[in-house]
Amino acid sequence: MLDQKFTSALATIVPSSALLTEPEDTRPYECDGLTLYREQPGAVVLPENEAQVVAILKLCHAARVPVVARGAGTSLSGGSLPVAAGVVLSLAKFRRIVEIDPITRTAIVEPGVRNLAISEAAAPYGLFYAPDPSSQIACSIGGNVAENAGGVHCLKYGLTVHNVRKVRGVLITGDIVEFGADALDAPGYDLLALICGSEGLLAVITQITVKLLPKPALAQVALAAFDDIEKAGAAVGKVIAAGIIPGGLEMMDRDATRAVEQFVHAGYPLDAAAVLLVEADGTPAEVAAEMAEIREVLTASGATGIRVSNDEAQRLLYWSGRKAAFPAVGRISPDYYCIDGTIPRAALPGVLRQIEIWSREYELPCANVFHAGDGNLHPLILFDANRPGDRDRTVEFGDRILELCIEVGGTITGEHGVGIEKIRGMCAQFAPAALERFLGIKRAFDAHGLLNPGKGVPTLARCAEFGAMHVHHGALRHPELPRF
Amino acid sequence: MLDQKFTSALATIVPSSALLTEPEDTRPYECDGLTLYREQPGAVVLPENEAQVVAILKLCHAARVPVVARGAGTSLSGGSLPVAAGVVLSLAKFRRIVEIDPITRTAIVEPGVRNLAISEAAAPYGLFYAPDPSSQIACSIGGNVAENAGGVHCLKYGLTVHNVRKVRGVLITGDIVEFGADALDAPGYDLLALICGSEGLLAVITQITVKLLPKPALAQVALAAFDDIEKAGAAVGKVIAAGIIPGGLEMMDRDATRAVEQFVHAGYPLDAAAVLLVEADGTPAEVAAEMAEIREVLTASGATGIRVSNDEAQRLLYWSGRKAAFPAVGRISPDYYCIDGTIPRAALPGVLRQIEIWSREYELPCANVFHAGDGNLHPLILFDANRPGDRDRTVEFGDRILELCIEVGGTITGEHGVGIEKIRGMCAQFAPAALERFLGIKRAFDAHGLLNPGKGVPTLARCAEFGAMHVHHGALRHPELPRF
Repeated sequence: MLDQKFTSALATIVPSSALLTEPEDTRPYECDGLTLYREQPGAVVLPENEAQVVAILKLCHAARVPVVARGAGTSLSGGSLPVAAGVVLSLAKFRRIVEIDPITRTAIVEPGVRNLAISEAAAPYGLFYAPDPSSQIACSIGGNVAENAGGVHCLKYGLTVHNVRKVRGVLITGDIVEFGADALDAPGYDLLALICGSEGLLAVITQITVKLLPKPALAQVALAAFDDIEKAGAAVGKVIAAGIIPGGLEMMDRDATRAVEQFVHAGYPLDAAAVLLVEADGTPAEVAAEMAEIREVLTASGATGIRVSNDEAQRLLYWSGRKAAFPAVGRISPDYYCIDGTIPRAALPGVLRQIEIWSREYELPCANVFHAGDGNLHPLILFDANRPGDRDRTVEFGDRILELCIEVGGTITGEHGVGIEKIRGMCAQFAPAALERFLGIKRAFDAHGLLNPGKGVPTLARCAEFGAMHVHHGALRHPELPRF
Repeated sequence: MLDQKFTSALATIVPSSALLTEPEDTRPYECDGLTLYREQPGAVVLPENEAQVVAILKLCHAARVPVVARGAGTSLSGGSLPVAAGVVLSLAKFRRIVEIDPITRTAIVEPGVRNLAISEAAAPYGLFYAPDPSSQIACSIGGNVAENAGGVHCLKYGLTVHNVRKVRGVLITGDIVEFGADALDAPGYDLLALICGSEGLLAVITQITVKLLPKPALAQVALAAFDDIEKAGAAVGKVIAAGIIPGGLEMMDRDATRAVEQFVHAGYPLDAAAVLLVEADGTPAEVAAEMAEIREVLTASGATGIRVSNDEAQRLLYWSGRKAAFPAVGRISPDYYCIDGTIPRAALPGVLRQIEIWSREYELPCANVFHAGDGNLHPLILFDANRPGDRDRTVEFGDRILELCIEVGGTITGEHGVGIEKIRGMCAQFAPAALERFLGIKRAFDAHGLLNPGKGVPTLARCAEFGAMHVHHGALRHPELPRF
C-alpha cells in the first residue's frame, strides 16, 4: 500500500480521472499477458504529457516508490507486473503519431501508439513499419521497444532494435534523455540498443523515432505441408543455407494448424504433421525468382504439397492463421503457457523430437508455433489450471524446454523478454562478471532500483540463493522453482 | 614512466620479445592516424593469447596502471593515443581467422585480423564482410569494432555494429565477458552495441563473430559529373528520396578528384565541380532497373555527364579513386586534417557552401570527400604544419565545421569516433544527464578509469571547466581550444 501523503502528491500532478487508487479500479492492471503472475498496484497513474511523467518520476524518486511503466499490457513475460507498494505508470494516453516523414522515411510516435497504427499511418506514402509481433493489433510501440519485440517479418527486416532510430525517455530522477540519433552513427556510447529491450528498468519512454520501409511491390507466401515434423524443421535450415532470406519463415505443427483452422479457416492442410509458411517479397521478378528457389528447396526437403498465395487476400489469409495461433489455442484449451526460447536452426529437428517426447511424458499437449527462420520457438503447452498438478507440470515442462535451449547453444528468450518469468534463468544464462556489469548499468540509470524492480536482471544475491537451493537439495532443481 | 617492479611483472607474462620499454622501441606507438597528438607510452606489450591478456589486465588493475588497447593504429581520432605512465596493449598478434561458417554466414576472427582479410577468406564461399572503411587494407577488425567503423558500403549494409554478432572481451579486472549472441535476440541488456564504438573504454576485445553476406551477383557504379557542388549535394538527397538505397553513394569535390586523379588515374572528369559515385548491386535485373532509375534522378538533378562501369575492373578503378582520396591529398599537401562530422542529407548543399566560404576566409584549401548517402562529411583541410599559424587556423576551421554539423542537427562524428580529438565536443553534444549515464556505465566496467583514459567520454568536471573558460573569456570560445 502507498501512504496517503504520497497519493495526495500524485493527485496534484494529474487530474483525478487519471489517478486510480481504489482496488476495483486498479484490478485490471494486476497482470499483463502472462496471467500466471498477478499483483495489484498501490496506484495507477495515467499521465498525458512528458511534463507529468517528469513530475511523477521525481515524486516517486524522492519518496523511493517503485514505478512500473505499462503500455498495452500484452507482455508475455510479466514485464509490466505491478509492485504492491508501487505505482503503475500507464502510457495509454501517449497515443499521438507526431510525424510521418516520407523523405527520411521515419515516423515520430508516442509510446502508446499501437504497432499496426504506425504502418496504417505510413501506408499512404507506400511505407510500413517492419517488426510485426502477432499482437500488433493491440500492443504498443513503447512496449515493443522496452521488450525489443520481434515478429514474423523480423527474419528479413530485423527486430525492433534494428528499426528504431531514436528514443526519448525520462530517467527516474526526472532527467530527460535521448538515445540514438538522426544520423546512422552517433558519438558517445551507443545506448539505443541498451534501451531497446531494457524492459522498463532504465527509463520511461516518451517518444520514439522509428524507421519506415518501402512496402514491397509484391509479396507471396508459400504454404508447404510435411508428413514429418523433423523434415519440416530440417527444411528451414535448408532454405537459409540456400542463400534465401525469406520475408517470413514460420512453422506450425499439427496441433497448432488444427486449432487455427477451426478458428480462422485459413485453408491449412489438416493432414500435415507440420506446415511451413515461407514468404518472398520484392519486385515481381525477384519474387518469381525467389519463389521458384523456395519451391525447389522445399520439394527437395520432402514437402508433400506446396501452395502459393494467388493474391494479397490469400496471402493475408495464410498469415492470419499464424497470427491467430495463440487465441486459436486459447479456444481449445482452458489455459496455455507460451514458451519463448531460441535455438540454432540446425538444432530444430532434435529439439522438436524432444518436445514431442516430453509432451507424452507430461501428458500435456503442446502445440508448436514458431519463427523457424531465426530459431525462435513458441511451444504452447495446453493445460487446465483447475486440474490439480497441471500448472506445476506445465511450468516444469516449459522449464525443461528452456533448459534444452541453453544446452543446444540457444537462449532463454527470443522476443518476449525476461520479465518476471525468466529472471532465474538469467543466473544460468550469464556469468557473474556479466551480471555485475548489468547491475552496474542499472545503477548508472537508477541507483535505488525503483524502475520495474525484480524484472530483467537478477541480483547476484538472488542467483547465489538460487544456486544454494540447488545444492541444498542435492539436485539440479528446486522442486518449486523453474530449473535452468 | 612505469616503475621497474611493474615492468618486471609484465616480463613474467610475455616473452621478452613481446615487451617493449626502450624509448626507441616504443616510439612507433606514440601516435595513430591522428598525428596531431603524440605521447610515448611507458611500455608496449604484445600478448599472443587471451590468457596473457587476462594476466596483463589483472596486473595493470592491481597496480592502477592505465591501458590503451591498440589494433593497426589507423584511428583518425587519436583513439589509441598512449598514456605516458601507461601500457599500450597491442593486439597485433591476434591474427587468426578462427572459423568461416558458410551455413550460418558468420566468421569468428581475432581482433588483429585486417578488415579486408575477412572478405578474402570468405570469398571462396561467395560471401563477404560488408563494412569497408577506406583503410580496409590496413585497419584491423578489433579497431573497427572499438570505433564502430563505417565505409562506402555502410549506407546499404550498415555500420560495424550492424554486422557484428558477438564480441568476446576481457574486462580490466581480468574477467572474460561475451556480448551479443548467436541468436537474433539475447536476454539481458543488449551490450553488443554498447561495446561497438566504446573506443577501448570498457573492455579489451579478444574475439569477434561477424556476419557475412552473399556477394551480390553484379555491382555497377555510376560516375556522375556536376558543374556545381550544391547541385551534386542536392542530387544525393534526390536519389534517396526516390526510394533508392545504393550500395554506395559518395561525393568528391574538384580539389579531391584532381588530387586523386594524379595519384591513381581512376578516370575522373577533371573539369567537374563535383562527382558522385553511385553503386547499384544485386541480380543483373535488379542492377539494370536500379541503374536506370539512378541515371534518371542524376540527370534530372543536373548531372553534366554520367558514366557507368562496364566491368568489374572499371568498377574497382572508379572506387579506387575514392578509397585513395586521403593518401592522394597527402601527396599534394605537407599536412592535412580530416574532419568527420554528420549532417542531415537535406543540409548538404548549405553546409558545402559554408565550407567553401570558410576555406577562402581561412586561406586554407579544403578537399571534400564524403559518404554523402548517410550525410557523413570528410572535409580534408590542407595545411603546412611548418608555416606559422597554419595549424591553429586549421583546427579552428575544422571546429567551425563540426560546430555547424551540430547546428544543422547533425553530430560531431560519423565513423571516426570521439577519441582524444573530439572529447570537448562531447560536452556540447550531450547534456549532463546523458554524460552522467555514460560515466556510470564506464564505472560499471572500469571503476578506476584505467582503460583508455581521457578518451571518448569527458568527465563532467572537464565539461564544467571547459564551460567556465568560455565564460571567463567573455566569448564563446577559448582561443586555444576547439570551440563547439
